[in-house]
Amino acid sequence: MQRHILISALALVLPLAPVLAEEVTTATLDNGMEVVVIEDHRAPAVFHSVWYRTGAADEPPGASGAAHFLEHLMFKATDTLAAGELSAVVTENGGSDNAATTADFTYYYQRIAADRLDLVMGMEADRMRNLRLTPEDIETERQVVIEERNQRTENNPDALADEQGRAAQYLNHPYGAPVVGWMHELRGLGYPEVMDFYHLYYSPNNAILVVAGDVDPAAVIALAQEHYGPIPPAPDLPPRLRPEEPPQRAARHLLFADPRVAQDHLTRSYLAPERDPGDQGDAAALLFLAEILGGSPFTSVLARDLVHEQAVATEVWASYQAVSVDATTFRLGLTPAAGVPLDEAEAAMDAALARFLDEGVDLARFERLRTQLRAAEIYARDNVTGLALRYGAALASGLSVKDVQDWPAILQSVTEADVMRVARAVLDPDHSVTVQVVHESEEG
Amino acid sequence: MQRHILISALALVLPLAPVLAEEVTTATLDNGMEVVVIEDHRAPAVFHSVWYRTGAADEPPGASGAAHFLEHLMFKATDTLAAGELSAVVTENGGSDNAATTADFTYYYQRIAADRLDLVMGMEADRMRNLRLTPEDIETERQVVIEERNQRTENNPDALADEQGRAAQYLNHPYGAPVVGWMHELRGLGYPEVMDFYHLYYSPNNAILVVAGDVDPAAVIALAQEHYGPIPPAPDLPPRLRPEEPPQRAARHLLFADPRVAQDHLTRSYLAPERDPGDQGDAAALLFLAEILGGSPFTSVLARDLVHEQAVATEVWASYQAVSVDATTFRLGLTPAAGVPLDEAEAAMDAALARFLDEGVDLARFERLRTQLRAAEIYARDNVTGLALRYGAALASGLSVKDVQDWPAILQSVTEADVMRVARAVLDPDHSVTVQVVHESEEG
Repeated sequence: MQRHILISALALVLPLAPVLAEEVTTATLDNGMEVVVIEDHRAPAVFHSVWYRTGAADEPPGASGAAHFLEHLMFKATDTLAAGELSAVVTENGGSDNAATTADFTYYYQRIAADRLDLVMGMEADRMRNLRLTPEDIETERQVVIEERNQRTENNPDALADEQGRAAQYLNHPYGAPVVGWMHELRGLGYPEVMDFYHLYYSPNNAILVVAGDVDPAAVIALAQEHYGPIPPAPDLPPRLRPEEPPQRAARHLLFADPRVAQDHLTRSYLAPERDPGDQGDAAALLFLAEILGGSPFTSVLARDLVHEQAVATEVWASYQAVSVDATTFRLGLTPAAGVPLDEAEAAMDAALARFLDEGVDLARFERLRTQLRAAEIYARDNVTGLALRYGAALASGLSVKDVQDWPAILQSVTEADVMRVARAVLDPDHSVTVQVVHESEEG
Repeated sequence: MQRHILISALALVLPLAPVLAEEVTTATLDNGMEVVVIEDHRAPAVFHSVWYRTGAADEPPGASGAAHFLEHLMFKATDTLAAGELSAVVTENGGSDNAATTADFTYYYQRIAADRLDLVMGMEADRMRNLRLTPEDIETERQVVIEERNQRTENNPDALADEQGRAAQYLNHPYGAPVVGWMHELRGLGYPEVMDFYHLYYSPNNAILVVAGDVDPAAVIALAQEHYGPIPPAPDLPPRLRPEEPPQRAARHLLFADPRVAQDHLTRSYLAPERDPGDQGDAAALLFLAEILGGSPFTSVLARDLVHEQAVATEVWASYQAVSVDATTFRLGLTPAAGVPLDEAEAAMDAALARFLDEGVDLARFERLRTQLRAAEIYARDNVTGLALRYGAALASGLSVKDVQDWPAILQSVTEADVMRVARAVLDPDHSVTVQVVHESEEG
């Protein structure tokens, strides 16, 4: 077992000094399971979570939705737990629990009184190995997952439009498929698909334990060794290699028309680099870019140009998903002002982007943003559950504890030249997908 | 071994009678290999071909190009043949040989004097089982395939644009990937990918032997039994199930700009049903639709409206790929007249399509087309190599001998109502991809 302790102090005075506050202890069990412990003694609670480096993008072709379906089925019976018993026990003990699946990872967590850590860890370790599904479980839960897709996607035109746009963004990479799965493939998922996925990916050497709260790191690691340590590593865990994108050579435009669209709007996404281990600078600059273009409804570039000066839009936004195993997206969007056709609003948005690329960053605004991002990082680290999620998501996406801890300083070191460099590289029409979401009258 | 002989007579008088002329004998060897023999005694030659029900759409994710790469490598050494020896022997005997790969199948053929059938069959059977590749073969041939991609795709902006359009047409199905492979994946293909593909798919129970020419069917079947019969069937041949398309919900537009584009043009593709066993009527109607919309440069709907009446285009075309395992495409395209922006030409094309859907088929023109298609079917069947290719492609795509033989009569039974029905179903903007291919000045 390796072990090292990293401690830093809150430093608010120097803008470029680290903003780290958390005490983080890491360890690796002999079976390959990583352990991350974040101490926070302000409340006698603990957040216990297990992260698998496996998500929807690891599903085989034709089995979209398998990762998320398995996440649901993980609440069924094991050799020693009845279906639903884990959550019931957590609730009886005053805690809460849940799970989530993304394209890159799946995680399970319980938030509970700190002295119940042993209890939840024992149950979580149990279902890593001993899930016992019946055909009835599969059929019952399939209906639940289908209903989830119905509610979140089929009955939500914005979500449907996003799904079509995502499929157009990726020519080859499995990020093009929805995490919940295509409906026709959900209907075909059965015991073999789900259990193959479970046996291939649910193992200690593909998992990260993240425990945060009122705990003693040495005691947590000893508990982890007791509960997770005896589970043998999966011998056939495949390397995490997904099909990569070929060069994207053509701007794509989608027209999504649906009678249920209440308000026309437009989204634009660009293929963009992700945070990579030891190489997070471009991602940090892209986070600034998103703030500069669409972060503020008053002073951001798109808000100023499109909402306030030209009044062609009532709302603009920009976002960047930095944590990702493979190439991610940088996204923009707008809601047009009443009576303004989407084509016209889009042309104004493209003109605003061109002007920004030509004129560059307003330096005073850039420094204010730097201060704001620094403050946001400090505030974020004051929330122990948020910190646990941050470490879990990063580690499950290929980043290291050091990458997470370096991130605030890297954010603070971004220059306006960095922002303009990544803006020119990423805002390339050939890498873009634009989705116009429009209300269609019932007659079609 | 089952065996049946189908003989029909050329019937030119009755428009709806079968136009079949060929004598076709079919058999199935005990190891599952299908045999199709087409007799044609007009010349003392034979066309010998083996078709594998395996193509680019059967490649695993990340290994695009493997099927075509393997096709190249099939000309390397076996236990008894030196690299290149098969083709050299065919040439020495006055014949020619080649091979081709599509998304759905791969076939190998030799055209040679009829008395050399035994010779070529022996060599073809040999390489079905006994291919012996060296690491040098892989590296050498990879360069050949990369150079093929360079010539046909990378240096051809129209092909690049088609490739991007195809990727946008399919949201989930592997038809979205190019048969030759994405360049970055071609570079990564090695011995394991190629040989896994070979061992999984190259077997008699996944193959069809099509022999056409101056042969005796019984003798051909006996020879097939001698050469192919001893090869054991592959026990693990997977069912041919590819990921299917989810509902396509958004019209897609691509702008492909490249300095090498000599002439701006536009292609439009729609997802369309394929010929299915026992269910070829819609496909037959779609073939009529392609002829009606873009078959003639003078009288087709698009030529009449866009070239002759409005003079917004100099050229129009329409095509439909009927033989396909899974959902195929119906395609249209145009070259704009000098000075006409592509957006304007596209709007005129959409208006012409809308008018056609509103006004329907010109009945006199429809009857002329019916006669023309009937004649084309008869002429096509006069070419024995073409017939062999037709049977091979159909059988390798899941159709039967009966489907191939029914096709002319099904074509003749199409009505104008059928055409309008499939036109309304297929020409749905939500299922479409439009690619504008434009010249971009060197400055961008």
